[in-house]
Amino acid sequence: MTERDSPVLVADVGGTNTRVALARGRTLVAASTERFRNAEFSGLDAVLQAFLDRHRNRPERAAIALAGRVQGTQAEMTNLGWQVDAGAMAKATGIGHIALLNDLQAQGHALAHLPDTHLRRLRAGQPEEGPKLVIGLGTGVNAAPVYAAGAGHFVPPAEAGHIHLPLHGAEDYRLADWLTKRRGFASVEDVLSGSGLERLYAFHAQEAHSGTALNAEQIMAAMEAGDALAHATGRHYVRLLAQVTADLALITLPAGGVYFIGGVARAFAPWLERFGFESAFTDMGRFSDLVARFPVAIVEDDYAALSGCAAYVQAH
Amino acid sequence: MTERDSPVLVADVGGTNTRVALARGRTLVAASTERFRNAEFSGLDAVLQAFLDRHRNRPERAAIALAGRVQGTQAEMTNLGWQVDAGAMAKATGIGHIALLNDLQAQGHALAHLPDTHLRRLRAGQPEEGPKLVIGLGTGVNAAPVYAAGAGHFVPPAEAGHIHLPLHGAEDYRLADWLTKRRGFASVEDVLSGSGLERLYAFHAQEAHSGTALNAEQIMAAMEAGDALAHATGRHYVRLLAQVTADLALITLPAGGVYFIGGVARAFAPWLERFGFESAFTDMGRFSDLVARFPVAIVEDDYAALSGCAAYVQAH
Repeated sequence: MTERDSPVLVADVGGTNTRVALARGRTLVAASTERFRNAEFSGLDAVLQAFLDRHRNRPERAAIALAGRVQGTQAEMTNLGWQVDAGAMAKATGIGHIALLNDLQAQGHALAHLPDTHLRRLRAGQPEEGPKLVIGLGTGVNAAPVYAAGAGHFVPPAEAGHIHLPLHGAEDYRLADWLTKRRGFASVEDVLSGSGLERLYAFHAQEAHSGTALNAEQIMAAMEAGDALAHATGRHYVRLLAQVTADLALITLPAGGVYFIGGVARAFAPWLERFGFESAFTDMGRFSDLVARFPVAIVEDDYAALSGCAAYVQAH
Repeated sequence: MTERDSPVLVADVGGTNTRVALARGRTLVAASTERFRNAEFSGLDAVLQAFLDRHRNRPERAAIALAGRVQGTQAEMTNLGWQVDAGAMAKATGIGHIALLNDLQAQGHALAHLPDTHLRRLRAGQPEEGPKLVIGLGTGVNAAPVYAAGAGHFVPPAEAGHIHLPLHGAEDYRLADWLTKRRGFASVEDVLSGSGLERLYAFHAQEAHSGTALNAEQIMAAMEAGDALAHATGRHYVRLLAQVTADLALITLPAGGVYFIGGVARAFAPWLERFGFESAFTDMGRFSDLVARFPVAIVEDDYAALSGCAAYVQAH
């Protein structure tokens, strides 16, 4: 058994849960997959130790995806107090080599190997050879291109959720002013994240002089129930998402397709076309035809980041 | 003499002029550098033939940078009627192998080898290891990250000039509405290109109910002369450029620095700090500190694209 054949540990550390599994090559060992609630642990070391205690063979390698900024062997979790140091963690857990990567990067590495059954294709058009663009919509918002590179993929880090929200007309201007008054800035993430959706609903409630504060889940339920305010919010969300996506597509030219990931993306899957994603996405002036070439899909696999970690280990 | 040592032909095809030179390794043969006016030639084949007629040894390899979209061995010049086919051109000129690349990509390849004397550094801070971001401001606007890759660099193509102009406050909203009425869309290039600057001046003339149409050169001269309308235009240009640059910096995280290239960038070099580039660049809400880490410079070398072509040939 070569080192490449021995199982590797893969983990996906989110703001609330950490998923851990063993993988052989690019294949997750389904029976090994576990989910841990971060609040019950003192840190990532403790989570990994709890997982390893149940497995006889200590993996020699691990790749860990984290919702936060990774700099070499260090990571900082954006929405969690945890500091992660790969070297210290390797010592504490006895795993020889631990690679850290941003969770969006892990998703990027997964894209090449995702079966079509885990994708919901939004727009006509087949992906061609070329870069892919992955856009994460969840607790936070981020995006990254995925380039083929040697045996694996190159997914550069980004903080794309924090750019100016692209504005297109009077309703957007009012929203941007409203956000700037409350947040000091009107960023993409301020509107397109889970809490961003709640903000957008609050804005529409104020515009309509009605409605009360709802959380994201309640907004999705109200949309399902046909509530007019929720529909106005959802329609605006989808248009702004389309504007952001079109901008990022012109910056990265993803002939290989655009892929939405994350809980908010999955929740919006049934609504995107209905709320006019297509027409807003291709409303880019002289460059509408170019944007229209890029297919768009939603990744419906909750474990894609783990598969991405496995693909990363295999290629490095 | 190995093939690597024999001179290669490098060319930079702009909308108006084509620059051609021979290079040995990454070094341009200064005496060989020539500039041709495109209007006097039927196509790029004819330009290259005119150049080659003066040189005894036919180069075996060439790299040609073009202001236009390149797809494999084909290119289309954005502001010129020329269609370029590398295969047909190789046959016509007798050069064995011709690589085409976008001019911005060529500039990206040049960055690693530019002497500090060809750079005007705008902001404090030393470039660190990491991606660079090159932003072209000229007849058109575009931007691309530059990633280290093996022996050379990877500079993905982009159409970043055609995204939504990032708007920040009421003056920008009025400008965007004004542009949308005239152009159907308010893109970055609509304001930050050479003709974009002329548009921005016309907008400020209308806001001030005064002034007449000026071309870009006249606007720069009026700025130099202390004209109030030109100053308002210049100040707005610089703020919008800073907003665009900060967005692109959050998307690409250029620890290696941001580099402006092109004629409009060189013309604005003395004005950027004076018109508040720094404060607008770092006005990014919670992410101001991150953006502030990236150094910014202007490339003052008019022949950088030729050097980039030479570097590209050497690495491929």
